[in-house]
Amino acid sequence: MLKVYSYYNLIINKFLYGEVMKNLKCYGSSKILKKVENGNPLFLCVIATTRTSNIPGITGAGATPELTDYTPAADLELVMHGAPKCLSEIPQTVTGDETAPTPAVITKACIELADIPIMVVDAGAGIKPDIPYIKLNDEPGEDVRTGKAVPKTKQIFEKGIMLGKTLSKLTNHLVIGESTPAGTTTALGVLTALGYDAGMKVSGSMPENPHDLKVEVVKEGLKAAGYQEGEVIEDALCAVEIVGDPMIPAVAGIVIGSSVPVTLAGGTQMTAICAVIKGIEPDFDFSNICITTTIYVAEDETSDINYIANQIGNITILAMDPEFEKSSVPGLKSYLNGSVKEGVGAGGAMLVASLGKIDMDDIRAKIEDICRDIL
Amino acid sequence: MLKVYSYYNLIINKFLYGEVMKNLKCYGSSKILKKVENGNPLFLCVIATTRTSNIPGITGAGATPELTDYTPAADLELVMHGAPKCLSEIPQTVTGDETAPTPAVITKACIELADIPIMVVDAGAGIKPDIPYIKLNDEPGEDVRTGKAVPKTKQIFEKGIMLGKTLSKLTNHLVIGESTPAGTTTALGVLTALGYDAGMKVSGSMPENPHDLKVEVVKEGLKAAGYQEGEVIEDALCAVEIVGDPMIPAVAGIVIGSSVPVTLAGGTQMTAICAVIKGIEPDFDFSNICITTTIYVAEDETSDINYIANQIGNITILAMDPEFEKSSVPGLKSYLNGSVKEGVGAGGAMLVASLGKIDMDDIRAKIEDICRDIL
Repeated sequence: MLKVYSYYNLIINKFLYGEVMKNLKCYGSSKILKKVENGNPLFLCVIATTRTSNIPGITGAGATPELTDYTPAADLELVMHGAPKCLSEIPQTVTGDETAPTPAVITKACIELADIPIMVVDAGAGIKPDIPYIKLNDEPGEDVRTGKAVPKTKQIFEKGIMLGKTLSKLTNHLVIGESTPAGTTTALGVLTALGYDAGMKVSGSMPENPHDLKVEVVKEGLKAAGYQEGEVIEDALCAVEIVGDPMIPAVAGIVIGSSVPVTLAGGTQMTAICAVIKGIEPDFDFSNICITTTIYVAEDETSDINYIANQIGNITILAMDPEFEKSSVPGLKSYLNGSVKEGVGAGGAMLVASLGKIDMDDIRAKIEDICRDIL
Repeated sequence: MLKVYSYYNLIINKFLYGEVMKNLKCYGSSKILKKVENGNPLFLCVIATTRTSNIPGITGAGATPELTDYTPAADLELVMHGAPKCLSEIPQTVTGDETAPTPAVITKACIELADIPIMVVDAGAGIKPDIPYIKLNDEPGEDVRTGKAVPKTKQIFEKGIMLGKTLSKLTNHLVIGESTPAGTTTALGVLTALGYDAGMKVSGSMPENPHDLKVEVVKEGLKAAGYQEGEVIEDALCAVEIVGDPMIPAVAGIVIGSSVPVTLAGGTQMTAICAVIKGIEPDFDFSNICITTTIYVAEDETSDINYIANQIGNITILAMDPEFEKSSVPGLKSYLNGSVKEGVGAGGAMLVASLGKIDMDDIRAKIEDICRDIL
């Protein structure tokens, strides 16, 4: 659902960035592109797991509910080592006869082609990746239905601020992706708790978006924490503590600590980050950040990222199109049917590769090579 | 003992760098200074603990043998937060009536004055600092007397390489300090195992350097691992595994993975790193790195860093002089009597602050302010 698609901006982008940017759609102001076009980006991927992702049917980020605990670690091992170490095969989304590979293949292709430094941040992954990573927090999140989803929210947030300050000295464009199975449910939790209308609007990794289940578990969590339906929680970190996930305060902290432009590389989960930031700093200047996702999230018929973002503020959303319709790999074509859509910062990785003048046809060819290697 | 003090280089340095470099002594070639003078340094501090530091009398890096387990975490909490969180007071070296504060006060002063980004790397600290840090390894090292000091040496080394590659994309001058209590003993272990003459030559954190004890525990470790006295171990990582500490393979890996100039910010411990690097890469080009320490190590009568370094290769050693004789803080004056001497990358921190045109008088004033705040 393209609510705020700006044809005018698209024309400007084409003029400014030529064919390299032909695979970008801009919702909102394209000014952020000017700020980051000659940057030396640092790609960060913040990982976390929660017991929420073990609820059957809630996420496709893993072949079974139990395997979703391994998805973030396996994703980043794939990016760094070329193959997962904690699992025998790569994370996949299985829907009926179709099997779609993790979006980590997109991220890997982009950062390798454009030679972008990548650092992984553990905000609370149940399984740890066998790579060097920055530790912000150890323990995974609980099931949101407990109403005690992220006990150490404040500590994670404060360490995020420290990290954001440090990283701002090392880059002039921070790109922050995430790998958090069932992260759209916890995003819905935080958005709902903070008073935003996000029910039926968050995205998901499966063609059939289980909105009713997501809404139900969030309701249960808020009730367990003593809140009535529709009651707004004023304290943003408290909302995360009750029905969020550990990735959210980590990324919110990094953004608030940062003094350089930030690309939030993700789908509707990143609107929850923006909501938390606004809750903590009501006058936060969103013109220095953007959300960059894939066209599969931006044009998703089962969700509406722009509708959510517009409630929060003037937030630019960029959507990258890898044109998987041109691909010969069946798993990538499944993205066109609504599988996976986004994750591991795939959209943001395509943006920085494109800013680095890598052609989307070359990115897609590299993604296909990676898929052939690992499948 | 100044065996290779190069007056010629000192003159060149004065000519090139003027008064800012008046507190630098250069042993070897000063060419490395040209490579890093306009750099954007990244200061890394690699921390680890071992059971070796619990041997009574072996180290002064903590008020008691048991408290040495807390020293690395407390050091970096002091640098990042302004006070330790895991301890009620800062790490100190107690000798008779004298109490000298941790060299973390020097590091903190320098990185704050010069606004240098700092990242902490956990190579195996028993107590974890309450800050964001990069995890390379979890478990601390064993007592060298077991002959099984660092079981995961190879994994730590390989992750170090990965980290060095990433960090090289974010800086053009990597400065690597360490905080590893009893680290001169484990350095002696590795140097001895690799066939270097280092007995009675490694430095230490106390005025009376317990050389006999250090030599004894190293002998015991090599014997426990089945090696005879004087027998040379060909495999450098094997030497670390038997009688080293977890910091050594981490830093060696980071240096080998790095493609930018590296300052090894430490004393005689850093010669063990060089020995391991040479063992792994016999043709390694040492002209792209240097060891930077304090004048208190370089002019230490109880040790000889140049004597060790010269056995390994053409390694430039720089020594920074904070002129604590001018200080009114008694704990800092204790450095002149042989307490502490170096640690937490203090010498390298003074170098990068000096390259950033910070005057040593201002550095010392800031150190004194920090001491007054925390003591």
